[in-house]
Amino acid sequence: MRFTYECCDCGNVFETGEVIYQCPTCAKLNDGTSFPKGNLIVKLNKEDLKTLAQKEHVTMYDFFPYEVPTPSAYPVGGTPLAEPVRLAKKYGIKNLSCKLDSTLPSGSFKDRASQLIVGQALAHGENRIALASTGNAGAAMSCAGAAYGLEIILFVPASAPINKLMQSVLYGATVVPVKGTYDDAFALSIAYTERFGGINRNTAYNPMTIEGKKSISIELFEQMGRKVPDVVYVPVGDGCIYAGVFKGFYDLKEAGLIEKMPHIICVQSKQSNAISKAWKTGDFSCIEAATTRADSISVESPANGRMAVRYINECEGWATEVDDSEILDAQLELTREAGIFVEPAAACAWAGVVKDSKMLIEKFGKDVSVCTLLTGTGFKDMAVFTGRVSIPEAIENSKEAVIKRFEK
Amino acid sequence: MRFTYECCDCGNVFETGEVIYQCPTCAKLNDGTSFPKGNLIVKLNKEDLKTLAQKEHVTMYDFFPYEVPTPSAYPVGGTPLAEPVRLAKKYGIKNLSCKLDSTLPSGSFKDRASQLIVGQALAHGENRIALASTGNAGAAMSCAGAAYGLEIILFVPASAPINKLMQSVLYGATVVPVKGTYDDAFALSIAYTERFGGINRNTAYNPMTIEGKKSISIELFEQMGRKVPDVVYVPVGDGCIYAGVFKGFYDLKEAGLIEKMPHIICVQSKQSNAISKAWKTGDFSCIEAATTRADSISVESPANGRMAVRYINECEGWATEVDDSEILDAQLELTREAGIFVEPAAACAWAGVVKDSKMLIEKFGKDVSVCTLLTGTGFKDMAVFTGRVSIPEAIENSKEAVIKRFEK
Ligand SMILES: Cc1ncc(COP(=O)(O)O)c(C=O)c1O
Ligand SMILES: Cc1ncc(COP(=O)(O)O)c(C=O)c1O
Repeated sequence: MRFTYECCDCGNVFETGEVIYQCPTCAKLNDGTSFPKGNLIVKLNKEDLKTLAQKEHVTMYDFFPYEVPTPSAYPVGGTPLAEPVRLAKKYGIKNLSCKLDSTLPSGSFKDRASQLIVGQALAHGENRIALASTGNAGAAMSCAGAAYGLEIILFVPASAPINKLMQSVLYGATVVPVKGTYDDAFALSIAYTERFGGINRNTAYNPMTIEGKKSISIELFEQMGRKVPDVVYVPVGDGCIYAGVFKGFYDLKEAGLIEKMPHIICVQSKQSNAISKAWKTGDFSCIEAATTRADSISVESPANGRMAVRYINECEGWATEVDDSEILDAQLELTREAGIFVEPAAACAWAGVVKDSKMLIEKFGKDVSVCTLLTGTGFKDMAVFTGRVSIPEAIENSKEAVIKRFEK
Repeated sequence: MRFTYECCDCGNVFETGEVIYQCPTCAKLNDGTSFPKGNLIVKLNKEDLKTLAQKEHVTMYDFFPYEVPTPSAYPVGGTPLAEPVRLAKKYGIKNLSCKLDSTLPSGSFKDRASQLIVGQALAHGENRIALASTGNAGAAMSCAGAAYGLEIILFVPASAPINKLMQSVLYGATVVPVKGTYDDAFALSIAYTERFGGINRNTAYNPMTIEGKKSISIELFEQMGRKVPDVVYVPVGDGCIYAGVFKGFYDLKEAGLIEKMPHIICVQSKQSNAISKAWKTGDFSCIEAATTRADSISVESPANGRMAVRYINECEGWATEVDDSEILDAQLELTREAGIFVEPAAACAWAGVVKDSKMLIEKFGKDVSVCTLLTGTGFKDMAVFTGRVSIPEAIENSKEAVIKRFEK
């Protein structure tokens, strides 16, 4: 599939001989106080795209600008589309589905991006990949690195929770904790690739992260019998997953495989609502402090905020904000009433559906089909249950104790 | 699909009006010193089976004695078949695959059994299911219960690691810690169902647990293009997973879909080798103390040991024993050199492949196809890494520190 890059902000087009990370003109305008500029959009060749309309079935591989090695040492995709019957009944949304990206190899959606980065690295003859992350992206890239024998250099804030890093260390990445913030780690990872070469995989910085993430939309399209949901709920921090989901549906539309984009909903915590705020007010300034317990979506200066806001408008989506308490309740509700165990950031998307449920039916009717993207497994953060959920008291080892416990 | 039960020990046949758990005659012979008797085999109707040979594709649902609700609130199956290219090269086994059951909804193979138990419960008009477990089976049943709104009563030894129980509590099961061993919990769960009714899902006790587990073999058959591997490696504790894997291939053969069973290899820790010992020596006495760090396969009196030994012989398999240190090394090797993160019990199967690798090529040639069943996610037991794997030292927040760290 041939492609070019296009700057999201100024519209400049770049040809594709090499890896381009940002529009240099727009990147210069960044002063750190408002959402960063200069992110690039991967534009697939229109003729190549149109040929896909002929195919009886398409896969994500048809839509990737780089080939990824398959059959796969790193099996990304094919995640279940669960139908949570109890929740569907409870909220009166008959056509409710949950996409379980929590079951991907490293336990989060970020595997989708890492899959394409492997293809990008191999195509450019690189076997070293550097990135900054506080958790899921690092684990995903390290997982891919282990599978294919690529060297992963991962910069992380030293203050990051040890458990979130353990996975990357186990996958054999070179983990470099930095005495600084995530933004510092981001800058050092760029210093690293500028000096030592290799692919830089930073989210939003490398356009292929968003391009890889679009695979979920193409998979959904085939899984739903070559249809797309009316409404898709996405948990949002930096805005890259949102942009990836949008891009997948956009490419399907460009290929002539669907007629209408779904409404894609940006769900954020009120305690980390930069993108939502920008969409509502037009004010793109960073927020002062992101304090949500859902650490994967805790973001002050959303790296892909401008693109996300633009895409919310283009697909006639909207932003829904939820309290942290609603996120934690949504996490328990999914576990108890659907058997779906996800981390708080993922549960944020479900909290958005709960909040909007009445409105959805009013707006679209009771047959509306709603899909919730569940982006990370509950195992990623077990500490969130401390003080909230406990193991019951033990009973004596006797039949009498059993009878006493259960006799009404 | 019509079916009868057959006693594994005496061959008595039972008709299928109700749920039968054990052969009463053989169960009476159990004295606690040798492997329990009386387990039942589900025999599918031969005519019904033969009709499946006509189908272009089969699914596990074609082979189940009970219908399970699908499309599914509890999406069990469809797990990736990874091709670990680096390990294949390292050990000279070109056709090497790993079945990632670690990605099932509750994070272990046990979801396969729980799926069919749901069908059994619904068919018999029960919405209460009791069981004893120390970890994965309890979590899987509780997950299914949450998905379908069934009441799960889970008896566990009070000494069980809190983290292993947390998942079941989160799924909303009624968790009953017992001041006693797993065997005590087992007995109390039976006392519970005798007194209060409901389905009893104890592994080996309820024949449908083995029957559900066979789904992996049918899935493998379709995933490999209607072929089966030459050799399949299975981690073994009680011997139920082993029996399930055997049964799936057996039913495929009965249906006329395959000609020859794979060699199914029983891998155990030397510190929990009851079934291996029995297969080698013909001595079915329980072992004194199972002390393996791979807690899911730590078993003194294997509940399904007799059936497992019989099946090892029937498929011309064998038993391979590995040291605990080999299991823990295998776990790290899978993570670092394949990006596959599994719990120690699962890694035991891979340790078996490593140990047998030279012999496999000698015996079957270099084109031998070998599949390793990876039965549980690494997240189930993070404590196993304490003292073995640590996070590197932090660097200063400066470009100079990066250069110093990486300049050669
Ligand atoms: C589990 C999970 N959900 C949602 C997100 C949000 O994605 P983004 O930052 O691209 O908006 C992340 C990002 O780390 C994540 O790990
Ligand atoms: C992850 C895992 N692997 C292997 C086994 C062994 O299965 P069985 O006891 O049926 O032999 C278990 C059983 O609990 C398990 O949880």
